[in-house]
Amino acid sequence: MLTMEIYRNAFLTYLNRQKNNKEPENLYTPIDYIMGLGGKRIRPVLVLMSCDLFGTDYTQAMEAALSVEMFHNFTLIHDDVMDKADLRRGNQTVHKKWDLNTAILSGDALMIMSNQRLEHYTGETFKLLLSLYNKTALEVCEGQQLDVDFEDMLEVPLVTYLKMISYKTAVLVGASLKMGAIIGGAALDDQQKIYDFGLNLGIAFQLQDDYLDTFGSEDFGKKIGGDILEGKKTFLYIKALELANEEDSAKLLELYSADLDGDYKIAEVKKLFFKYELNTLLTNEIEQYTMKAFQDIEELSVESSKKQVLKNFGLGLMNRKT
Amino acid sequence: MLTMEIYRNAFLTYLNRQKNNKEPENLYTPIDYIMGLGGKRIRPVLVLMSCDLFGTDYTQAMEAALSVEMFHNFTLIHDDVMDKADLRRGNQTVHKKWDLNTAILSGDALMIMSNQRLEHYTGETFKLLLSLYNKTALEVCEGQQLDVDFEDMLEVPLVTYLKMISYKTAVLVGASLKMGAIIGGAALDDQQKIYDFGLNLGIAFQLQDDYLDTFGSEDFGKKIGGDILEGKKTFLYIKALELANEEDSAKLLELYSADLDGDYKIAEVKKLFFKYELNTLLTNEIEQYTMKAFQDIEELSVESSKKQVLKNFGLGLMNRKT
Repeated sequence: MLTMEIYRNAFLTYLNRQKNNKEPENLYTPIDYIMGLGGKRIRPVLVLMSCDLFGTDYTQAMEAALSVEMFHNFTLIHDDVMDKADLRRGNQTVHKKWDLNTAILSGDALMIMSNQRLEHYTGETFKLLLSLYNKTALEVCEGQQLDVDFEDMLEVPLVTYLKMISYKTAVLVGASLKMGAIIGGAALDDQQKIYDFGLNLGIAFQLQDDYLDTFGSEDFGKKIGGDILEGKKTFLYIKALELANEEDSAKLLELYSADLDGDYKIAEVKKLFFKYELNTLLTNEIEQYTMKAFQDIEELSVESSKKQVLKNFGLGLMNRKT
Repeated sequence: MLTMEIYRNAFLTYLNRQKNNKEPENLYTPIDYIMGLGGKRIRPVLVLMSCDLFGTDYTQAMEAALSVEMFHNFTLIHDDVMDKADLRRGNQTVHKKWDLNTAILSGDALMIMSNQRLEHYTGETFKLLLSLYNKTALEVCEGQQLDVDFEDMLEVPLVTYLKMISYKTAVLVGASLKMGAIIGGAALDDQQKIYDFGLNLGIAFQLQDDYLDTFGSEDFGKKIGGDILEGKKTFLYIKALELANEEDSAKLLELYSADLDGDYKIAEVKKLFFKYELNTLLTNEIEQYTMKAFQDIEELSVESSKKQVLKNFGLGLMNRKT
């Protein structure tokens, strides 16, 4: 097993070789642009690491790693349109730098190209990868739809919220690991376990996002309370409405919908969250998903030194302040 | 071999069985809506017919037929956004009936679902189908991009225009026939020939579209001259700029860009087209592509009675007045 940094560098070297001068330029330039914006490249790294974990040369998983990263970037292009986002990783989003039509069409092309990368594989491996890819891709769309739907809903059931964060983010983390496992020749049980590890870790990560957005430190320059200002239906909001008495529920709904001073709104909502100890409740929830993820690792039929690599990755991912 | 009508009815019966109550509703309702809007279902019919042509039970090609029709409908959803079209087959387009985000996301999901349909097949057949699907899908995106690009160009090379109509429309006709051939167990040569037949017929059909839009009869209620009013760079416009003297070229460019009375503009542009006998030139071009298509049929290694079915289809498609 190698370090994450080595997988990452190997992937970046491979990615940089892909740039080409395909025509029509207006279709492919935005694709090169978004793929070049950077990011942590967590998903492709997980594909490579998982392949290596099961004793197969990780370079054999390179095309699948590229496929996953391309798919992820396709979702970024289209999601940024839907969210009317101007910036992505500190740079203009595709629809801002170009226009709506370019964002739609380049996104479509990138999705097809990401699927095409799997054609590198053959036989049963190919079939398994493609089936997992399509299932996951459709779930990601469903997750995004749920997220869009939430905007017009006052109350969201917690189970639907958990489904949304699973589908929108966590399934692709699980699928990345499972793809590596398929290429690595892992047994079916191990394929499932490593998928579950990614899924649970992904959910923990998203819940931690909710936590940090409201209770995080501003030391790292991140503005706290963005979710509250945007009126997002997060774990905290949903659980607060579930636990609060009638008066506090009404107050929360009013705070969320009223046009108030930002700092005041954040402070008042946080007071309610603290009153019902939602900070503790959410910490426990994150802990539980993280524990589940680590339990999944334990059940893998690989040497314990390899399990440690996965654990270190999980700890590294969760041990963040922003 | 059966009649087109029988393939079509079999496909429609199969399609109607697909309707489901999948969640989230806001993602899947628009998909059922567009798939239910009708249309001639030419592409799925071609998949079934081609499979039958090579002696294999056409019902085996049903999932591929559905895949192709779903892919086509995905392109309609996204193209309608890009073209700002309000109506599709006399009904509201998806982005009009719902909104932009719904059109983007439902389109994405439909594309994935269309790819997923090919998972019905196995082994080499699956691999061949998927590879053809992806190649074609990317070409369709490239064709759409070229079409978008043309809007901002004054002059378009004829070869680029032919590439645009090939990619945007004809390759999917060719691919539909080739998919049926692959499932039908056709030899590689026959797969290629039937693809070429579809490609050439598709180009002929699109060129005929250009012809009818300018020189067609208004008997069937279709407004003539729409392409001229929209300033579209069609075969006629491109070829006119190529053949006309300096004075007439300048006149055409001016007519295309000036804000004139519609009927006057159409009449003046048509005068120029007639002066350079572009009606005859375009008729000849259509004839040539149609002949090429029929030549491709001749070279197929199937009985002549089966060839006749393909010819009849081609004649039926081309023998239209609107």
